[in-house]
Amino acid sequence: MRSADEYLAGLRDGREVYYRGERVEDVVAHAELGLAAQHGTLDFHGPGPEPSPYYTLPRSPVDLRARSALIEESTRRGRTLVVLIKEIGTDALFALHRVTHGTGAYKRVAAYYEHCRDGDLALAVAQTDVKGDRAKTPAAQDDPDLYLRIVHRDDDGIVVRGAKMHTSYAANADELIVIPTRSLAPGEEDWAVAFALPVATPGLKLFCSDFLHGTDDAFTHPISSGRKMIETLTVFDDVFVPWERVFLAGDVEAAGRIALGFVEYHRMTAVSYKLPLLDALVGLGFALAEANGIARASHVREKLTWLIAYVESVRALIHAACDRAGIDQASGLAYPDPLLTNIAKWTFARDYYPAVERVIDLGGGLLVTGLGGADWTSEQVRPYMEKYFAAAAPAEERLALINLASDLLARGYAGYQGVLAVHAEGSLEAEKMMVFRAYDSGPAAAYARELAGLD
Amino acid sequence: MRSADEYLAGLRDGREVYYRGERVEDVVAHAELGLAAQHGTLDFHGPGPEPSPYYTLPRSPVDLRARSALIEESTRRGRTLVVLIKEIGTDALFALHRVTHGTGAYKRVAAYYEHCRDGDLALAVAQTDVKGDRAKTPAAQDDPDLYLRIVHRDDDGIVVRGAKMHTSYAANADELIVIPTRSLAPGEEDWAVAFALPVATPGLKLFCSDFLHGTDDAFTHPISSGRKMIETLTVFDDVFVPWERVFLAGDVEAAGRIALGFVEYHRMTAVSYKLPLLDALVGLGFALAEANGIARASHVREKLTWLIAYVESVRALIHAACDRAGIDQASGLAYPDPLLTNIAKWTFARDYYPAVERVIDLGGGLLVTGLGGADWTSEQVRPYMEKYFAAAAPAEERLALINLASDLLARGYAGYQGVLAVHAEGSLEAEKMMVFRAYDSGPAAAYARELAGLD
Amino acid sequence: MRSADEYLAGLRDGREVYYRGERVEDVVAHAELGLAAQHGTLDFHGPGPEPSPYYTLPRSPVDLRARSALIEESTRRGRTLVVLIKEIGTDALFALHRVTHGTGAYKRVAAYYEHCRDGDLALAVAQTDVKGDRAKTPAAQDDPDLYLRIVHRDDDGIVVRGAKMHTSYAANADELIVIPTRSLAPGEEDWAVAFALPVATPGLKLFCSDFLHGTDDAFTHPISSGRKMIETLTVFDDVFVPWERVFLAGDVEAAGRIALGFVEYHRMTAVSYKLPLLDALVGLGFALAEANGIARASHVREKLTWLIAYVESVRALIHAACDRAGIDQASGLAYPDPLLTNIAKWTFARDYYPAVERVIDLGGGLLVTGLGGADWTSEQVRPYMEKYFAAAAPAEERLALINLASDLLARGYAGYQGVLAVHAEGSLEAEKMMVFRAYDSGPAAAYARELAGLD
Amino acid sequence: MRSADEYLAGLRDGREVYYRGERVEDVVAHAELGLAAQHGTLDFHGPGPEPSPYYTLPRSPVDLRARSALIEESTRRGRTLVVLIKEIGTDALFALHRVTHGTGAYKRVAAYYEHCRDGDLALAVAQTDVKGDRAKTPAAQDDPDLYLRIVHRDDDGIVVRGAKMHTSYAANADELIVIPTRSLAPGEEDWAVAFALPVATPGLKLFCSDFLHGTDDAFTHPISSGRKMIETLTVFDDVFVPWERVFLAGDVEAAGRIALGFVEYHRMTAVSYKLPLLDALVGLGFALAEANGIARASHVREKLTWLIAYVESVRALIHAACDRAGIDQASGLAYPDPLLTNIAKWTFARDYYPAVERVIDLGGGLLVTGLGGADWTSEQVRPYMEKYFAAAAPAEERLALINLASDLLARGYAGYQGVLAVHAEGSLEAEKMMVFRAYDSGPAAAYARELAGLD
Repeated sequence: MRSADEYLAGLRDGREVYYRGERVEDVVAHAELGLAAQHGTLDFHGPGPEPSPYYTLPRSPVDLRARSALIEESTRRGRTLVVLIKEIGTDALFALHRVTHGTGAYKRVAAYYEHCRDGDLALAVAQTDVKGDRAKTPAAQDDPDLYLRIVHRDDDGIVVRGAKMHTSYAANADELIVIPTRSLAPGEEDWAVAFALPVATPGLKLFCSDFLHGTDDAFTHPISSGRKMIETLTVFDDVFVPWERVFLAGDVEAAGRIALGFVEYHRMTAVSYKLPLLDALVGLGFALAEANGIARASHVREKLTWLIAYVESVRALIHAACDRAGIDQASGLAYPDPLLTNIAKWTFARDYYPAVERVIDLGGGLLVTGLGGADWTSEQVRPYMEKYFAAAAPAEERLALINLASDLLARGYAGYQGVLAVHAEGSLEAEKMMVFRAYDSGPAAAYARELAGLD
Repeated sequence: MRSADEYLAGLRDGREVYYRGERVEDVVAHAELGLAAQHGTLDFHGPGPEPSPYYTLPRSPVDLRARSALIEESTRRGRTLVVLIKEIGTDALFALHRVTHGTGAYKRVAAYYEHCRDGDLALAVAQTDVKGDRAKTPAAQDDPDLYLRIVHRDDDGIVVRGAKMHTSYAANADELIVIPTRSLAPGEEDWAVAFALPVATPGLKLFCSDFLHGTDDAFTHPISSGRKMIETLTVFDDVFVPWERVFLAGDVEAAGRIALGFVEYHRMTAVSYKLPLLDALVGLGFALAEANGIARASHVREKLTWLIAYVESVRALIHAACDRAGIDQASGLAYPDPLLTNIAKWTFARDYYPAVERVIDLGGGLLVTGLGGADWTSEQVRPYMEKYFAAAAPAEERLALINLASDLLARGYAGYQGVLAVHAEGSLEAEKMMVFRAYDSGPAAAYARELAGLD
Repeated sequence: MRSADEYLAGLRDGREVYYRGERVEDVVAHAELGLAAQHGTLDFHGPGPEPSPYYTLPRSPVDLRARSALIEESTRRGRTLVVLIKEIGTDALFALHRVTHGTGAYKRVAAYYEHCRDGDLALAVAQTDVKGDRAKTPAAQDDPDLYLRIVHRDDDGIVVRGAKMHTSYAANADELIVIPTRSLAPGEEDWAVAFALPVATPGLKLFCSDFLHGTDDAFTHPISSGRKMIETLTVFDDVFVPWERVFLAGDVEAAGRIALGFVEYHRMTAVSYKLPLLDALVGLGFALAEANGIARASHVREKLTWLIAYVESVRALIHAACDRAGIDQASGLAYPDPLLTNIAKWTFARDYYPAVERVIDLGGGLLVTGLGGADWTSEQVRPYMEKYFAAAAPAEERLALINLASDLLARGYAGYQGVLAVHAEGSLEAEKMMVFRAYDSGPAAAYARELAGLD
Repeated sequence: MRSADEYLAGLRDGREVYYRGERVEDVVAHAELGLAAQHGTLDFHGPGPEPSPYYTLPRSPVDLRARSALIEESTRRGRTLVVLIKEIGTDALFALHRVTHGTGAYKRVAAYYEHCRDGDLALAVAQTDVKGDRAKTPAAQDDPDLYLRIVHRDDDGIVVRGAKMHTSYAANADELIVIPTRSLAPGEEDWAVAFALPVATPGLKLFCSDFLHGTDDAFTHPISSGRKMIETLTVFDDVFVPWERVFLAGDVEAAGRIALGFVEYHRMTAVSYKLPLLDALVGLGFALAEANGIARASHVREKLTWLIAYVESVRALIHAACDRAGIDQASGLAYPDPLLTNIAKWTFARDYYPAVERVIDLGGGLLVTGLGGADWTSEQVRPYMEKYFAAAAPAEERLALINLASDLLARGYAGYQGVLAVHAEGSLEAEKMMVFRAYDSGPAAAYARELAGLD
């Protein structure tokens, strides 16, 4: 395992990163991107000889539970923001292991996995293509580059062109793993491509979202002033990939299985890392109710009860998904039960906004009408804040809770988490589709027919 | 274990049972009550030397999972109707074991438990008092008998007066176990009473509900024409109970713990026995969609997906409740995690009607406008039914499914299951209250405060 | 207007009606069908010279509001069961007026309308075909008769074959109006058929559903023991229709417009006649809460508040649909705003089961475990009922409310109303589709684009 | 009516306003507050002799509908942000008219109303006290100033101390109207106070929230970069109010009526001004679905249909509340039906987050991972944005919609609107309480009892 400093040092490598229209020379020193890099250090516990536990290939339900707990704990230390810098990459590596097992690509996957594990590398995954018109397949788009594709092949490797979006943390990762976003059909061989590259590869350009820019008032933004996850539009301007790093190039049938295999692991990761955020919502609900003096109101209890059941259902469901793990016969890898994983993810996602609304209800209107850090430090204003924002707790304590609520529920970070709940790691519709597919309706339908006197 | 016949023979003992205003001489031979007795035979698998597995005292998560599976399977064989004739009684005995452990009553409980186990007796539990005005405590009611109470004590035993309602299957049980319905306060000693009696005890009168009377058309009532659970208003007209069968008499503090301890086990039982009904709903949804030719419609998939997630969430949650069992230090008995048990039960209950509505949606209006068994057997009518009720399946098959749906979702048995979902084994409000109480808000609140920079 | 007796006398005309597999000679004297006929008398207020107000052709919002109030009031007098014997038929006649206006059929429609109005006839409408495999169009069914069709045309008229289902009250109507169930495509001319006939026409056979059979205990079935709506499978065994009663025969384009035009009026009718049922639910909720002594509990208030908002929203929306009536330029007929009508209907339908569940919650488990009329009249049982079912109201009063709740929410009539809520007068999906279609997205989309700085 | 310039000129009067800890000398010239002032000009259409229509005292349903339309239209011109600068103040004046009618205060209210109307003044209303511990009454707070109170009375007037929060637009209003926040009890006379003052009154201090600070990138914040509503903590540091501007001073019984009377009008205002925001959500849903190429997907139609029904239900309900206006006998003022007004408001509020979630679903993850205005104007970045963010619409058009969605649904303005939906103009709980209170359960309960055979 590397140390945090080793990790940070590795990011200064000439990578082509842009923020707010300008090239960033040093992502560690940059005011905004540096926060993301610092956040990434939470996954580095070295220096030491043993590999990072994120790289452990899961072979049993117990391994999956351990992995889930690891992800939950690192996110808890990340103050509700997932660290992700090893989580997502190993999700992809596990999927590549399973899908390529028994094919020629397996050796390359295994070698690359060892390279990353032994180097304790930070990994980003680029999966979601920009997609163009969603009603059209990759080959039918007006611009063939709207799904990443192979534009050249020769003995040394392939050249790819296109772009991926929603890529998290690529600007502060060592490596970028690229996998397909969807199943493909014959005739779409050029779009069936998976590979890995160092982030500092010529032609690879990262355009960073500034969505959470300017959240620097730690008084009103206790989380987002210090924690950043940066997404990029990740452009491949005719980027060369040597064959040893190519894991898929043309096998349309395998493309969908990689996409799906990744998702199977990654949704388990996702639900695991949502748990600290959900715990924070419940805990905040209790703390706000106390501070506001409403803890004994029946509607408050009703809301807290709903929150408890929501959070603990999500937790129990993802644990159950681990406990009912399937074991892939070929590779020996364990994977979380797809039905329960998707039910857990859907349960999380569909009740996230209702949960937000309830905590807002407990918090009060001050979440958006309160005063800021400059007021709190002003001698002219602070005395009034101390006097008039006191409730069942002193103003300082109560405002700290209200500001946490404002950050988590009403400002940019709130919107960020909300949109991620709806879209990230699979949309609500994608989760529902997988629940439907993962369910074997045979036994239940047979039981119904038996009850009906049929068969 | 006794055989089914031994069980049935034991029910002919002069018990005082009334149905539709008249004394029933033989509950086995009676047209309606006999169906309930026959249903009870599903829990008898002897004759044989080993005790019934229902009587196994749970000492580990594995024991609880086995018990849950046993209850689920017997209900499945009972065609969605719980058998209950040993399930509920052992729930009560487990609770009595735990609460009386270390007290003088423990010996009597243990002896009674062995008596039931060794005799393989059929048990009913009378818990819910008739309660009178819900806004008043037992002692404050206009009529003190509205909660069952002790009206006399002497050296031989106690005399009790009052009534319990919602007592399931008492008419075809051997023994009746009586426990308090709620926590009590000092001054309510006379209402703190728990005991057990043979059903055929002088002064014990069972007035049977006829709610499912007349569901004898097997064509339109494929389940309820053959399956009955009968509830009674169970009246204690100054009934004498010898001390050896008295488990509680005056300890108001223990009363609430018995009520709650029973509920802890019984909600696990309840969720376990709901699973076949829920499986039937999902399976019926699939089968109806096929038979009606709508299986490919997107709204149909949406509804089926919702049903799948509902059922499998309930199943996963109750399994998780078993897996996270607590172990009572004193008695060594395992009990399902109260938080997850109540979340499972609440999840079942709050989404039961939405589930019903969805399957009705898939079934169509024929659930309430269709023709009956007399039409199907009529030469004048059947040809029209065969011709005009054919769809993507032949009429005979499709009508069998529609009639199953009608029985499960739109007729008396449907209402019975629906009202039980809302009220039985604890109302929605009771489940919510237990979720709130069982949750330790400390860690989550501490995490929120940590995030807010407090403490 | 005719008198009730004149109406009943007219039903003794040799019509071919079957119940439970047997021919019914006299629908008025029949134990079950007679209740439906008696219910129909609520729409007869004569004898007198003026026509029934149901026949008033609506020409303004005020006319529609008057019609809505008329339907609501007659249903209220019908104890939550719609009378329908003139409501639905005039809905169809209004639609036929509008669609045929300007065509040759208009004269026949107008003449038939006058015939019905002047004779104050009772009308049933047969719309829903049996449909066979829902995934196939009428012409693509294995059996072409699964949608009613023209099998012969000559100078005198047409001959039709097939069946309609879900036909309400045809057994006690004078006339049967037949209209298409859906839009049709070229090639489906034989299925494009609308006409009217006396019920007692050769070849027309009515097979009655016995769904609510045997609800004769007035103690536990205070509504359904006296009120019946009977649906039929309505078979046309090569029935001849003279041209003067044919309103559509081959115009596939007009078929859909008739189907839709009827639905526009009929959904307004439907929402109007649901209001007494909804009022009964709210009122029952209040009355049960009082009788049980729980009226001051906060969760009870929460549920009652939800019920109030539900019922009054439905009422306000259907009134608004009348107030925003469109006026058909050609015929001069007013029609309720389709967007609001369908929103009102959908609001009613989607929250019906949640409403049911809430009132069940307020009522308690006795809805399905209570004792019956034979118990209440038994000297041996009644004293115990009086003693033990008393609460914040005497037992007699409380049981009357609980039995009303049981009838409305848990027995066959409850299932009947529930399934109708989901399917009758258009399913939930049909209502949603119409909301989507009736909405002009232009202004809202233009506003969004303006806000986005586009256009 | 004054002109916009006259209005702005009037705001330069030495008022004591603070923003981010510093005194603001000129609220019109200030970068952030100036946007709020500019927004306020939308309510000024002069110069001209006739009074502003906001000041029209409503005397009929037609007047209320006109007022609702006026508010809706000005908000539409305000790009979803309410102007409010006359709306809320007149709500308060109408309530004061009604409550003081027949008392000595009426003359002062009338004179003040004429003063405002004739001067076409901009009005803010301070109602919500800071409240301290919500579990305690005003008099029981540790600090008696946590509800605004009278600390001195003499012949000239009163002196008040305390603070109000959530005061909208006070920094750019001419006058501040102060009314009680709740009903009061005997012994709380000092807190029963209502009055009005020019904003530039000695001792009156406005501390502005900076919640929407820094939303200056018009590319990603198309609404909030130009539109501001600023709330203040409004402190009364022993402020003197002359008797002629005192409307309530000690009458605890009238305090609650003023609070409630204001709310009756103000909730109608609130629902009216939410309509453009809701229209924007629906329209944006349609536009995003088109631009993303998903308009034909069934789940998209489902979501759009839900949105349509939501928005049009809210609109129809508030219109119905106007149409069913009550007329206050004493003052002759019309007021919207309280039951329907609160149902409309609750319907808006409880489904607001579900609506937000649906539009986010249609918009995609780019709402929070997209690039910003600096990228769009960068020659190095924009070509990639144009290439890779094209879909079924060109990138420029699609990004404009996505950025609008981001501003409305995922950034600070989104949280602002979301929290207001839950809390402003009465919380969800307050609305439910009023629905319960405004409903006369008598007729429905009587109907239920009649159906039950009682009475």
